[in-house]
Amino acid sequence: MKFSYISHLYCPKCSTEYSYQEIQQLCTCGSPLLVKYDLDELRSNLNKENLVDRESSLWRYHELLPVVDKENVVTLGEGMTPLLPMSVIGIDMDIPNLYMKDEGIIPTGTFKARGAAVGVSKAKEVGVKELAMPTNGNAGAAWALYAARAGIKSSIVMPIDAPKITRNECAISGSNLNLVNGLISDAGKIVGKAVADYDLFDASTLKEPYRIEGKKTMGLEIAEQFGWKMPDVILYPTGGGVGIIGIYKALCELKELGWVEGKLPRLVAVQAEGCAPIVKAWQEGKKESEFWADSSTIAFGINVPKALGDFLVLEAIYETEGCAIAIDDAAFLQEQEKIAFLEGAFICPEGAATFVAARRLRESGWIKEDEVVVALNTGMGIKYPDTVNVDVPVLQKEEALKKSN
Amino acid sequence: MKFSYISHLYCPKCSTEYSYQEIQQLCTCGSPLLVKYDLDELRSNLNKENLVDRESSLWRYHELLPVVDKENVVTLGEGMTPLLPMSVIGIDMDIPNLYMKDEGIIPTGTFKARGAAVGVSKAKEVGVKELAMPTNGNAGAAWALYAARAGIKSSIVMPIDAPKITRNECAISGSNLNLVNGLISDAGKIVGKAVADYDLFDASTLKEPYRIEGKKTMGLEIAEQFGWKMPDVILYPTGGGVGIIGIYKALCELKELGWVEGKLPRLVAVQAEGCAPIVKAWQEGKKESEFWADSSTIAFGINVPKALGDFLVLEAIYETEGCAIAIDDAAFLQEQEKIAFLEGAFICPEGAATFVAARRLRESGWIKEDEVVVALNTGMGIKYPDTVNVDVPVLQKEEALKKSN
Repeated sequence: MKFSYISHLYCPKCSTEYSYQEIQQLCTCGSPLLVKYDLDELRSNLNKENLVDRESSLWRYHELLPVVDKENVVTLGEGMTPLLPMSVIGIDMDIPNLYMKDEGIIPTGTFKARGAAVGVSKAKEVGVKELAMPTNGNAGAAWALYAARAGIKSSIVMPIDAPKITRNECAISGSNLNLVNGLISDAGKIVGKAVADYDLFDASTLKEPYRIEGKKTMGLEIAEQFGWKMPDVILYPTGGGVGIIGIYKALCELKELGWVEGKLPRLVAVQAEGCAPIVKAWQEGKKESEFWADSSTIAFGINVPKALGDFLVLEAIYETEGCAIAIDDAAFLQEQEKIAFLEGAFICPEGAATFVAARRLRESGWIKEDEVVVALNTGMGIKYPDTVNVDVPVLQKEEALKKSN
Repeated sequence: MKFSYISHLYCPKCSTEYSYQEIQQLCTCGSPLLVKYDLDELRSNLNKENLVDRESSLWRYHELLPVVDKENVVTLGEGMTPLLPMSVIGIDMDIPNLYMKDEGIIPTGTFKARGAAVGVSKAKEVGVKELAMPTNGNAGAAWALYAARAGIKSSIVMPIDAPKITRNECAISGSNLNLVNGLISDAGKIVGKAVADYDLFDASTLKEPYRIEGKKTMGLEIAEQFGWKMPDVILYPTGGGVGIIGIYKALCELKELGWVEGKLPRLVAVQAEGCAPIVKAWQEGKKESEFWADSSTIAFGINVPKALGDFLVLEAIYETEGCAIAIDDAAFLQEQEKIAFLEGAFICPEGAATFVAARRLRESGWIKEDEVVVALNTGMGIKYPDTVNVDVPVLQKEEALKKSN
């Protein structure tokens, strides 16, 4: 049996087709490319029950991933992250069937590992020797480390203000890491020039077709972890939007395979008030977003003023009858503390924003009390140590501890 | 069928037995207590093949864990961490069958989550309302967060020099966190007094009987992940020693169940040269260690001058024909970089020490070329950001990237 059922790449804007056997970047029309699989053939060769004894990583879905030869898989054991009941905070917000898909429990501590694992594996398969990318931190860390494991050289450019932890991750991987005295858009320009000058593979978000496939596995896992039933609502913190695009693609493929039935979950794009281009476009019923000037939020992972795949994010929202909602920084930082206190999970601000969104959508009645709701946490809280303000008493050696309240 | 096959607790020093249905701490003789299971009964009710479709967390082994009622399980999705081939660095050190068990891919980012998950679950089951413990950081972070999830109050005392990230984790959980202007031994004294004064549950290492059971699951997973064959050597960074004690206990139980056969893996306790009491005791053929004065190492997780369970660690080494070896800080920091560069894994210094140990034991011939060797990494590198020295070029917006070497 084939390891992958990949068929070809295609452009969702102009329908041009491309081969998966060569290096591909954007379509000639400028759009990101998507991957198509032979789902009819796969349907007759594999049942979802066959998955049960497979390894607990995203590679358990290898037929629905683009790597053709198993030998090219570059893995650090990513995937099958926990799907946790969050019933205490769920009851607090009147959504008793609230769950969290926790993407902090993964190599490098964020969901970026999924895109990097599949993207780097496929890059290795098609012969990439060196890649380059701009990053706000976490994606660069993931790609630098997976590239190191693959024996692929990397050049990463990140803003000087990006979190130091991600800088360390890139640096220790041996990447050609550079900081830029500017924003991620400035990093992007430097990478664009380097890609042209040195003939590098451009691993920028959606400029290569395969990170979507990696992130798609979040959707596959949610379906499998719910016993191949779909939840009613999935909330996703949306910057570049690859996660929500991937989840939507996964659920469509599962439906076409007949592995799930019924209505797709309503997908909710959660953004920060200081950077909400998708929310604005959705409110205006548009198919694409506009550049969000002077964007600002402490949740730097969703500080993306204009996403290359915005039209795919909006399609996912419209097709599933979802919505888009913006949350202010103060609210999600407060929710982050509440989640740790009530549920013992120290999650990232982007993830906390999805909980505030669930709370508000329940208040407005958009989410019903009995619905099954999944909040997606994209990373560990410890990757953003500065979001926690700690004021801790210091004892001298002979001093006694005060009793807790 | 029963959820747990726990039978009773017993003292490995004086053989006194205790009930698992009440709160227990140390034996009256001062020794840690161990858990006994009805393995004969379990053998006739469960085959290892029954595990195949269970959830990918440590709770898949619930029959061999102490929680009697499933409702008391407090989980953040811990366990079934990756077992990764490390063949590039393996070939570099002439151990082609080198693997890493990566305990960074777990809630809170270190193996401490296992002890906390099982310890807190059992504490909940026996009615603990409030616990206290001293910590060098990671254990406190794990126990504080799992206690929050369980609705149990916690008081944590850590040295003022403990890593800030772990301080944040405790603080955000709502724990009664205090720093002490001193060492972990000073924190221990403050906790000891608070436990007596306020009638708290003492969750200090080995003063409660159940964290060993949580850490034991590392051994269960290694056996299952190798298809119920055992590797030849397991190297473990050893501070308090609970990990190595747990792995030894797991393998003995599996052998008694008949789920594995043959010789147990040789267990290697890896310590830092600046704090090597177990190594010294092993070299001198002793059954217990002596207090290591003025201990010092950057790998603070193994900075334990005298472990309460030292006699159990030494027993595990002697019974498996293992050994103990001390590594200098400079060597494991260098190895940490090499592992990231060659394998894409950014691991903690304690974990890196096990790779240096494997390298040295191969050079001395103690490890043979064809042996299957597991290096245990106890945590993520990002929890210790100060161990990476980064000197990164800064570009101005208009500057070009230099090509990588």
